[in-house]
Amino acid sequence: LSRKVPIIQFGLGGVGRALLRQIIEKREQIKRRNGLELEIVALLDSSGGIWSPNGLDERTLRRALAAKSEGLSLHDLPTGRAKMDDVALVTRVAVAGVKRAVVVDVTADPDLQDALLAARRHDYGLVLANKYPLAAAQKTFRRLTGGGRLRYEATVGAGLPVIATLQYLLDAGDQVTAIEGSISGTLGFICTRLQEEVSFSQALAEARRLGYTEPDPREDLRGLDAARKLLILARTLDWKIELADVEVESLYPADMDSLSVEEFMEATSALDTAYAIRTAEARDKGSVLRHLGELRDGRCRVRLKEVPAQGYLGALRGSDSLFLFHSARYADRPLVIGGLGAGVEVTAAAVLADVIDVARISP
Amino acid sequence: LSRKVPIIQFGLGGVGRALLRQIIEKREQIKRRNGLELEIVALLDSSGGIWSPNGLDERTLRRALAAKSEGLSLHDLPTGRAKMDDVALVTRVAVAGVKRAVVVDVTADPDLQDALLAARRHDYGLVLANKYPLAAAQKTFRRLTGGGRLRYEATVGAGLPVIATLQYLLDAGDQVTAIEGSISGTLGFICTRLQEEVSFSQALAEARRLGYTEPDPREDLRGLDAARKLLILARTLDWKIELADVEVESLYPADMDSLSVEEFMEATSALDTAYAIRTAEARDKGSVLRHLGELRDGRCRVRLKEVPAQGYLGALRGSDSLFLFHSARYADRPLVIGGLGAGVEVTAAAVLADVIDVARISP
Repeated sequence: LSRKVPIIQFGLGGVGRALLRQIIEKREQIKRRNGLELEIVALLDSSGGIWSPNGLDERTLRRALAAKSEGLSLHDLPTGRAKMDDVALVTRVAVAGVKRAVVVDVTADPDLQDALLAARRHDYGLVLANKYPLAAAQKTFRRLTGGGRLRYEATVGAGLPVIATLQYLLDAGDQVTAIEGSISGTLGFICTRLQEEVSFSQALAEARRLGYTEPDPREDLRGLDAARKLLILARTLDWKIELADVEVESLYPADMDSLSVEEFMEATSALDTAYAIRTAEARDKGSVLRHLGELRDGRCRVRLKEVPAQGYLGALRGSDSLFLFHSARYADRPLVIGGLGAGVEVTAAAVLADVIDVARISP
Repeated sequence: LSRKVPIIQFGLGGVGRALLRQIIEKREQIKRRNGLELEIVALLDSSGGIWSPNGLDERTLRRALAAKSEGLSLHDLPTGRAKMDDVALVTRVAVAGVKRAVVVDVTADPDLQDALLAARRHDYGLVLANKYPLAAAQKTFRRLTGGGRLRYEATVGAGLPVIATLQYLLDAGDQVTAIEGSISGTLGFICTRLQEEVSFSQALAEARRLGYTEPDPREDLRGLDAARKLLILARTLDWKIELADVEVESLYPADMDSLSVEEFMEATSALDTAYAIRTAEARDKGSVLRHLGELRDGRCRVRLKEVPAQGYLGALRGSDSLFLFHSARYADRPLVIGGLGAGVEVTAAAVLADVIDVARISP
């Protein structure tokens, strides 16, 4: 006994391709384990879209994967269609009679809200790895989350069950009073290297070489991505808050914004002494520096902070993330979730688990 | 728009009473948040049972709570009925036309399997805090878990989302290769005290005074409770395994089994030197002793083990629990879940969240 779950997937970047591969590979296992048959009915990215109300077959999906890794557009596929609008695609799928579909947004596109809201109107489930729609205006967050068939585990901590745990605490009537976390894998990596007495500029260069940073590492150092994640956590707790309300400490001075990327990388050595001093000061107190997002007493803050070397946050290594939840029931010591907090495979896995979870719920 | 969720509750001990209080207090909140109206239709413990197909009213539930804290039986309530068999109660509720109920087992009764299986036959959901039915024969585990409407978060790590995280990894097609954890809050507390250079006998006496141990602390020291939790984790991973297959290191020599409890407590000072030596040996290597359950390469083991002082397990304090999941996707560094791992309030909260989760799934 199994049930079909039609999927509309937006996005075929790193996470999108990993998701497509995981769906192809795990389809049989999911059917056996969960009684659900995942069927991609539509695939759309900026290059074009393909769809079939009965589900795209495996050959077509594999072709789409191959095309993308060769830099082709979906439009170039023999089965491809003309470039289509995202809202129009959702509507076409719905008009073709596809019921109980799940729309998956694995883009980093700030403009997909309309398509997502269209999906909601057709009673489709929503699964987001894309932070932008949830970090947009409060009103959009409320509209998307209303009705309870939205999941967004992958937006915070990649594959770590951060949102699920938060929902679980709230479902059981706990009051979450504070969340503290090393939210950015990239900045966490730099903190670990500082602790190991590597200079700031060298740690940053390493992170960049390992592919942990954005092409322009200032994107990471500015802390905006961590701020978006913190905002999503705050809104999940029903805080009325906008991105501009999150207080963010940038890890470089604003006057370095005018430099080119390469100039910036050169110039970071000027920051080494200051970071070495901060690191040494922390060490003298038995502490280490960590880049933390903190949500407490109505304030959201992203900053470098000294924490005890022998605690959970001190135990962090590499690019791992760690989240500490303080609540009425976890008052003395927090509930802790940690581990690999970035990467396309774990992010796609979180999306896949969310799809299964949404599909399980009656609409 | 909300839907009624009829609940049959077995057990009114510490967890059972906390659950009943939480249901009374959080009912409105759960209705608003989850669209579910929780209704206790039957309450049964060893002293008797009460039920009503339309739901017991709040006054009756509060009376039941008061009666239990005065040491009275449910049978003594004005609304009480004659002592009833658990299977008969489930059948009566079903015959009265109650659909989509959830049976909650918050007893520590090894003999409730028949009632639970009867509930399954009526398509009722199951939520267990009771480890015994899941730690019984493999066949019973399979029968109870088949069909996917069983939850048992509270059986391992109390309120920590251990089982949910494991299911989440499995749903997303990850291969869990090993689980390691400080599973016993009681033994974890003793390990922390040893680390603080308190003697074994004194640490044990403290744990007992704080109410962390069973009346006979040998129950804890034998490691059987931790073994049951490990068995449940192994079976969740689909391992075919029985309790007798779990290798358990007892923390006291078997010849002390013949002593009375008070004699035993006196005699534990004879173990102090050995534990002080083990603790010092660990410290010399930058390690600390932890009481761990470990599941790896087909083996389940419960024992004292040296772990690095600066890692997650080393960061453990007090009676907190910590679980490390190693998998194909969390290969280099584990996914970590930790925090308060014992106590009636968090255990009841896990049961409550499970009830909501089971109720959300279409039967």
